[in-house]
Amino acid sequence: MEMNIALLPGDGIGPEVIAQAVKVVHAVGKKFGHQITFKEAITGAAAIDAVGHPYPEETHQVCLQSDAVLFGAIGDPRFDNDPSAKVRPEQGLLEMRKRLGLFSNVRPTFTFPSLVHKSPLKRDRIEGTDLVFLRELTGGIYFGEPRGRNEQGTKAFDTCMYSVEEIERLARMGFEFAQKRRKLLTCVDKANVLATSRLWRETVQRLAPEYPDVKVEYEFVDAVAMRLIQWPKAYDVLITENLFGDILTDEASVISGSMGLMPSASIGVKTKLFEPIHGSYPQAAGKNIANPLATILSASMMFEYAFGLMDEAKAISDAVNLSLEKGMVTEDLADGGTSYKTSEVGDWVAEQVGMA
Amino acid sequence: MEMNIALLPGDGIGPEVIAQAVKVVHAVGKKFGHQITFKEAITGAAAIDAVGHPYPEETHQVCLQSDAVLFGAIGDPRFDNDPSAKVRPEQGLLEMRKRLGLFSNVRPTFTFPSLVHKSPLKRDRIEGTDLVFLRELTGGIYFGEPRGRNEQGTKAFDTCMYSVEEIERLARMGFEFAQKRRKLLTCVDKANVLATSRLWRETVQRLAPEYPDVKVEYEFVDAVAMRLIQWPKAYDVLITENLFGDILTDEASVISGSMGLMPSASIGVKTKLFEPIHGSYPQAAGKNIANPLATILSASMMFEYAFGLMDEAKAISDAVNLSLEKGMVTEDLADGGTSYKTSEVGDWVAEQVGMA
Ligand SMILES: CC(C)[C@H](C(=O)O)[C@@H](O)C(=O)O
Ligand SMILES: CC(C)[C@H](C(=O)O)[C@@H](O)C(=O)O
Repeated sequence: MEMNIALLPGDGIGPEVIAQAVKVVHAVGKKFGHQITFKEAITGAAAIDAVGHPYPEETHQVCLQSDAVLFGAIGDPRFDNDPSAKVRPEQGLLEMRKRLGLFSNVRPTFTFPSLVHKSPLKRDRIEGTDLVFLRELTGGIYFGEPRGRNEQGTKAFDTCMYSVEEIERLARMGFEFAQKRRKLLTCVDKANVLATSRLWRETVQRLAPEYPDVKVEYEFVDAVAMRLIQWPKAYDVLITENLFGDILTDEASVISGSMGLMPSASIGVKTKLFEPIHGSYPQAAGKNIANPLATILSASMMFEYAFGLMDEAKAISDAVNLSLEKGMVTEDLADGGTSYKTSEVGDWVAEQVGMA
Repeated sequence: MEMNIALLPGDGIGPEVIAQAVKVVHAVGKKFGHQITFKEAITGAAAIDAVGHPYPEETHQVCLQSDAVLFGAIGDPRFDNDPSAKVRPEQGLLEMRKRLGLFSNVRPTFTFPSLVHKSPLKRDRIEGTDLVFLRELTGGIYFGEPRGRNEQGTKAFDTCMYSVEEIERLARMGFEFAQKRRKLLTCVDKANVLATSRLWRETVQRLAPEYPDVKVEYEFVDAVAMRLIQWPKAYDVLITENLFGDILTDEASVISGSMGLMPSASIGVKTKLFEPIHGSYPQAAGKNIANPLATILSASMMFEYAFGLMDEAKAISDAVNLSLEKGMVTEDLADGGTSYKTSEVGDWVAEQVGMA
């Protein structure tokens, strides 16, 4: 297969971890006989510095012409704690999501047997957790208008807005995911308070008869924030709007105790994007110590979700599991034992993929 | 002291747990020489059934004339899963909060030494947790206008709105709480996305110099959703807007492993209201098995926050701690051992208060 992949390393540790994913993707290409072309482009603080915009038009074109985008991380401490900064790296992220139509952020949460002890949660509560969030990513209060201040500056307002179409395409993806998994779909909303949530619930209720094999549950976002930590194994597929998804997927990422390992996929109208859920971790930038496994696992999701290539995806995730078992890991996972550099872990996983 | 207390038992287990708090408050009155008058009024599904409205005008008048309100729980399964029901118990709750001006919901999270093993979180992560949320309760997306649907019904929208005054009064309370505690204030927002959050952050930044002894931290809501489970001991006082507070306080309630024990106070312009954070638990209603301790601890908060009577407050919380140590508890806390009825636990705690 021919694959055109846009590379957006971004800020902080982004370039280092993306470099490891590139090695691994190359190894997959070689082993399975794919012809893979990478094209790099700038985003985030790096792009603000270079051209004054966090998501330049040229970068957008590179993404549009790609089959998939591999994304590192965005964010720079220079822009934090300055709520009035006119141009901010995060704007680039939101603009990219919107312009690429990346409406569904897919975030699996699962445990790694060798890392369960790292979770703040007790083993019996989390062992075997296997859930996936579909977070709506291009609507809701992130993008609704009007937003801003009144003239005197004494009031601020934001608008949460959803159309039936926006809800329906996300919900259908949720039903389809559930059909391929344990057939349980949880619609997370706040229908006892919000008009938008009531439209979510109605829309999901209307679609449900088309998927008779899927059991649908409706839960309020506050209840899910509790149950997610009390008993994460109760969930299979969860669908939710943008802001609830932001909060709950980050909460869920703690369950496994391995945030540095969690990948994500954003499924879009125009392309698909794959990125680790961790941030740009500026303190570690340039030190060759950042954990590249979440980015490498995001590349695994890329083979599955962008190209439907399950063997390739599995070759990567198997290699990652082996690196964890054998302790071929960066210092954050080494429990004080022997640890390896970012580039060494990348080399090792790429080599494993080649040997598999 | 003379005290006029409005009693709003509400739905489900509400009446049973309120009855136990009344016993305990009477015991305090007798022991410390206060003259306490209770006046009962209807709310929730009970009020819908009786007069067609979940927060009747008469109930509002009873609350207005009180020094404090003791509230049980609201909610009835007949109204759930029917997003189109015109009159809903929750509307009564929101109307009550708004009309009584209950702008600050105070929710402490702490651990009980004898119950730490019940938490889904590991002991070393939570032991000694002592944090308090101040959730803004009468603004934000819960009340902002416009809200609803477009004419064709194909779009829904909600408005999040905050004025500087609304933020300032909540923030000042946060600074004052922090001054009396460990002097750390965390402002929880989503200032990288929301206009309302930027106004929150600016307002808190403007006030901070007036409280030089308080250290202020600003954290995004998604980061707090993580850190709250990873390391709850890092927090002291957290202030946040209505919807974030709804989600995060419920999440926090899991930490202690004793949700059935968590009290709350809502501080208002016109009165103060005290309620357990658990719901109406309809499955247990009428069985004399519900855990009354959260409601009894809410009565303890009432003596502290409504009347400034610390000895009275402590007499109650000491008695509750003793009931936990001695295993004078309902079946949810009995670990399969001997358990007691709701009314027996209430009697025991009231008696302890009298003996203290
Ligand atoms: C950086 C921020 C705007 C972003 C979001 O809120 O979506 C981030 O938290 C995420 O989840 O990708
Ligand atoms: C019942 C519901 C409207 C309410 C809220 O969202 O405020 C509840 O969840 C709470 O926290 O008291």
